[in-house]
Amino acid sequence: MANITKISPLAPAHFPQLPVIAGVRFATAAAGVKYQGRTDVMLAVLDSGTTVAGTFTRSATRSAPVLDCQAKIGGASDGPAAILVNSGNSNAFTGHYGQTSVATLTQSVSDITGVSTDRVFTSSTGVIGEPLPHDRIIAQLEDLNGALSTESVEAAAHAIMTTDTFAKGASAQVEINGKTVSIAGIAKGSGMIAPDMATMLVYIFTDAKVDQTSLQQSVSGLTDTTFNCITVDSDTSTSDTLLVCATGASGADASGNAAFTQALNEVMLDLAQQVVRDGEGATKFVEIRVTGAASDADAKVHGLAIANSPLVKTAIAGEDANWGRVVMAIGKSGAAADRDLLSISFGDILVAEKGWVSPSYSEDEAAVYMKAQDLVIAVDLGLGAGSSTVWTCDLTHGYIEINADYRS
Amino acid sequence: MANITKISPLAPAHFPQLPVIAGVRFATAAAGVKYQGRTDVMLAVLDSGTTVAGTFTRSATRSAPVLDCQAKIGGASDGPAAILVNSGNSNAFTGHYGQTSVATLTQSVSDITGVSTDRVFTSSTGVIGEPLPHDRIIAQLEDLNGALSTESVEAAAHAIMTTDTFAKGASAQVEINGKTVSIAGIAKGSGMIAPDMATMLVYIFTDAKVDQTSLQQSVSGLTDTTFNCITVDSDTSTSDTLLVCATGASGADASGNAAFTQALNEVMLDLAQQVVRDGEGATKFVEIRVTGAASDADAKVHGLAIANSPLVKTAIAGEDANWGRVVMAIGKSGAAADRDLLSISFGDILVAEKGWVSPSYSEDEAAVYMKAQDLVIAVDLGLGAGSSTVWTCDLTHGYIEINADYRS
Repeated sequence: MANITKISPLAPAHFPQLPVIAGVRFATAAAGVKYQGRTDVMLAVLDSGTTVAGTFTRSATRSAPVLDCQAKIGGASDGPAAILVNSGNSNAFTGHYGQTSVATLTQSVSDITGVSTDRVFTSSTGVIGEPLPHDRIIAQLEDLNGALSTESVEAAAHAIMTTDTFAKGASAQVEINGKTVSIAGIAKGSGMIAPDMATMLVYIFTDAKVDQTSLQQSVSGLTDTTFNCITVDSDTSTSDTLLVCATGASGADASGNAAFTQALNEVMLDLAQQVVRDGEGATKFVEIRVTGAASDADAKVHGLAIANSPLVKTAIAGEDANWGRVVMAIGKSGAAADRDLLSISFGDILVAEKGWVSPSYSEDEAAVYMKAQDLVIAVDLGLGAGSSTVWTCDLTHGYIEINADYRS
Repeated sequence: MANITKISPLAPAHFPQLPVIAGVRFATAAAGVKYQGRTDVMLAVLDSGTTVAGTFTRSATRSAPVLDCQAKIGGASDGPAAILVNSGNSNAFTGHYGQTSVATLTQSVSDITGVSTDRVFTSSTGVIGEPLPHDRIIAQLEDLNGALSTESVEAAAHAIMTTDTFAKGASAQVEINGKTVSIAGIAKGSGMIAPDMATMLVYIFTDAKVDQTSLQQSVSGLTDTTFNCITVDSDTSTSDTLLVCATGASGADASGNAAFTQALNEVMLDLAQQVVRDGEGATKFVEIRVTGAASDADAKVHGLAIANSPLVKTAIAGEDANWGRVVMAIGKSGAAADRDLLSISFGDILVAEKGWVSPSYSEDEAAVYMKAQDLVIAVDLGLGAGSSTVWTCDLTHGYIEINADYRS
């Protein structure tokens, strides 16, 4: 029997202290959607004028809540907004019933909070293909609305977990025109219970004032180098959702501000890396740095080919500096590579160069390096100026236990 | 300690009885390239006029022997030909030394057998990045040449194994213009010892007379629906090689003959499926049939996305009819899909249709079906006439043991 509640060895020591974001209040409840004895619903209500940007899974079979969010992003930002999230049921592949559930939930939230339905965003994560028992959630909405508090972000991080082994939060602060702007975010991913699917949900809040177009531009751009650069097992969820909400309560206008974008990038990257650190069965956190590629896009293709290779990932699990498998992954990726220009390092150890093992390479030295929990694999293609960094974890018996052995 | 010599539960009961192919003779030897106490070199010599067609890995980091074979395929077919294969060392990512090894080996084979160097094809499979000790192979060439026999094809199948758990052979016979034409083939794949890589080597021989252009055309076309439709772990070798040799000794001209092409297809498909049945850690053989796709190419993209999904493969290992993961894989594949037109069956059991679970679906019935060793997952996209079938195996603790735990 798999013990999937054991906390990841790569987890941070504790949940970080997140700054209060003026303009957003949270509440959580135990609705019993699927799990018993724990919170499984989060409601966030955002003050009038909050802009909301988002990025979503590109899956062709994406869930009803994702489709609904996508339709609403970019609309008017005048009134208040709300986000309702449940864990335990993803409302994915539930046919027309799924759309009805979303419509019923958003109407109920609107009725109770006074937020217009076109500003109510919902997410669901958990089992797939089962009708969402939305009545259980609706039964909690009055209490949720009464309990809203600016302090409850950590509780919110817990309520959105499925089989995550730890709650994920990150924050940053930056000065803009003499005012302090705060950013706080929470994320879930990527635990699993058969027949669930790993999903990633991310909610980031800031008291900066950012116009929606500018916020969406930043979020879309930063997603490409943060959440779209992580992989646990190459399998893409039907529910992945990232929402970034700018309440404007700080009074500082951060539209197009470089320092704000940098701070937002830090929070997104931190949360993305925490998702990898909670990868199923993970015992190693691996950064793959690709440089010298023909283009940035090529570099990312190579990076993800390495990060998704079962042979590379099992070698890392076995603490084996198996650079041959890295060569293999580069070769199969489909992006440009020249065997004789390639160099590969594990940490500071130059392993391979000019189409062969480096004369300076010591396997004993590499074996010591591979025992570390956090590893860096650096690949230089020797072709151009393209670069990309991606993050992954190893592939262990724990992954098989969680995904094959769990259902008895 | 992983026991990687245990025979796959999916192995055939015994090596098949292969017909003798007039015009080709085999010999094997124990050269001690890496393994001790077993044969590791195979020499095949083919009579004058034999045409040779081949397909090879598309890896950008392919091995020196592969590059050499590719340069020679399609040349003149007048004189005799030879194939030299060693296991234990893949001569991949060995820089310029690798090319020197190939040149030295082909020259030595030429000197001893009288075959012109541009008709000597070599393959190497095994450890990557280590110089091939080609002198050990050359030391065996006189004996090999003296021992050549038309009967030794099964011995050849054994000599090319690395950590395969069984030797792979297949054959077919067909009447052409009143003459019996025979086809016999052998293959290896896909065992592994760190830091080895899985490689697939396939050699098929026929006494049909087929001009090289026609043979190459058949082989290239059939590869797309046989060897290019199997996957164990999505990782592509630097050494994959398929050579098909037509000696013409039967006197029957099979150039462009449909029955011959069909027979060749049977042999290729049989060998391809045997490679999957020896997939690392495999306990289930899975056929994935995709129909109703927008195009054949789209169908294959969907099929391989399902076949390569770690979540689908672990669910199969756990005997879990987890159709939600199949939906997920289709959604992420990038090829066209419409959630509401999709239907999915496991064997004869209709699991999902019209964007949701089928009303007739019984999970108990599916659970019984999933206990079978050979499984069929059928997906209909409901979009067009495109179809493709691919084959894979499950992902088990055995895979992790072989690839992570082996190196202590």
